[in-house]
Amino acid sequence: MSNFGFRRLRVVNPYQVAFRRAVSAVGASHVLTDAEEHTTVADAVADCALVVGTTAVRHRELQHPLRVLDEAGALIRAQLQTGRVAILFGSERFGLSNEDLGHCNWLLNIPTQKNHISMNLGQAVAVCLYELVRNSPVDLPPQDSKPAPAGDAERITASLLDALRHSGYMKPGTEAASEEKARRFVRRLNLQATDGKVFLGMLRKIIWKMKSGR
Amino acid sequence: MSNFGFRRLRVVNPYQVAFRRAVSAVGASHVLTDAEEHTTVADAVADCALVVGTTAVRHRELQHPLRVLDEAGALIRAQLQTGRVAILFGSERFGLSNEDLGHCNWLLNIPTQKNHISMNLGQAVAVCLYELVRNSPVDLPPQDSKPAPAGDAERITASLLDALRHSGYMKPGTEAASEEKARRFVRRLNLQATDGKVFLGMLRKIIWKMKSGR
Repeated sequence: MSNFGFRRLRVVNPYQVAFRRAVSAVGASHVLTDAEEHTTVADAVADCALVVGTTAVRHRELQHPLRVLDEAGALIRAQLQTGRVAILFGSERFGLSNEDLGHCNWLLNIPTQKNHISMNLGQAVAVCLYELVRNSPVDLPPQDSKPAPAGDAERITASLLDALRHSGYMKPGTEAASEEKARRFVRRLNLQATDGKVFLGMLRKIIWKMKSGR
Repeated sequence: MSNFGFRRLRVVNPYQVAFRRAVSAVGASHVLTDAEEHTTVADAVADCALVVGTTAVRHRELQHPLRVLDEAGALIRAQLQTGRVAILFGSERFGLSNEDLGHCNWLLNIPTQKNHISMNLGQAVAVCLYELVRNSPVDLPPQDSKPAPAGDAERITASLLDALRHSGYMKPGTEAASEEKARRFVRRLNLQATDGKVFLGMLRKIIWKMKSGR
C-alpha cells in the first residue's frame, strides 16, 4: 500500500495478537499505525461510494458482475475522481464470505492461471494497487537516450574498417563488400550518443596500438 | 510465478538452508522443485536473448536505460515471441550489485511512491509478472450482464408507481411529475435482465400485500 501511495487500511476483526504486534513493531509504516479497526464489513465500507470485492473464483454462482483486473482498474480510477472506493480482500485461506460479498457492488479477479488461482494476500494487494497507479506519470530522470549522430556512426565505421584491415580480418578483394557489411553492422548497434564516443575512443586506441606495434 | 504461468526460476547462490527447506517442503510448487541453481549471473542468463534488471533506484548514475514497468512489459512481451528473457531480481536487502547490472541490457522500475521505493521481493515479482500477462485473454464465465429490456423497465416503473400511490408517497396533484421521476429513477438503476425480473416480483408482492391489507 505504501509503495503505491494508498494510505487508508481498514481491518475487520483482525487476529489481535498478530495485528497488535504488527502495529507496534519498530518501523511499522503509517499505513499500519493509522489503520482503522472495524467489527463489521458494513461499518468499514460505510463511507465508500463503490465497494469492490476480490475473488480468485470464477464461477457463475457468484451472482455478481465479475471483472478482470485491468477493466476493473479503469472503473475504480474513474470512481476515485468523485468518491471513496473500498477494495475488499478476504483472508488468505478462505477469501471473502458470502456475507462479505453482499456488501460489494461487483467483484474483481486477478488473471491467474486456471490451475493456480489462489494468491498470496500481500501479492494480490500489490498487484491490484499497481494496476490502479500504473498509468500515473513517473518521475524518471531524463534519459541520455539521444542516438549517436550519423556522422559519429560513419566515423566509427571508418575506424572499425581500419582496425579490421590492420588485423587481417578482411580478405583481399572483399573490401567493398566488407565495408558495406561493417556500415550496416554499426547502424544496427543503435548506439547512444555517449556510447558512440566511447566506442570511437576504444577503436582509435586499438588502431594506434596495432599500427605502432608493427 | 505459478499464479501467472511462469515456470523457470533460476537462483544464483541461494542461501542453502532456506532454499533446501523451501524446495523440500510438502506441497512445494513445481516452480521451486524445478528451480535451477547457478553460481554466477552470467551462467544463469547465458541462453537469454534479453536480460532485464529490476531496480528501485532512479538515479542517472545507473548508466543503463531505465524503463518504467508498463513500457518495459511491452518490450519484454515482444522479445518473448522470439527468445528467452531473464528478469533479474536482487536480494530484498541490497538489490542487484553493480556487477549484476553489468549483465543487463536495460533496467526496469516499478512506479512506486518516491518516499517508499523499496518493495517486498515477492510483491515486486508478482507485480512484474502480472504486467506481462495482464493483457492475455482470460477465461471468465459468460456474464449474465444482459440489461433488462425496456419493456421490463416500464413494467417495473408502473408497478413502482402503483406501490407508491398505495403507500401515500405521492402527493395529490404531483402524479405527472412523480411518474416522470420514477421512470428516470428506474432507468438509472441499469438493471440486469435477471435483476429486473426479481425487482418486478418484489414489487408485485408488495402491491398485493398493500391492496389486500386495506
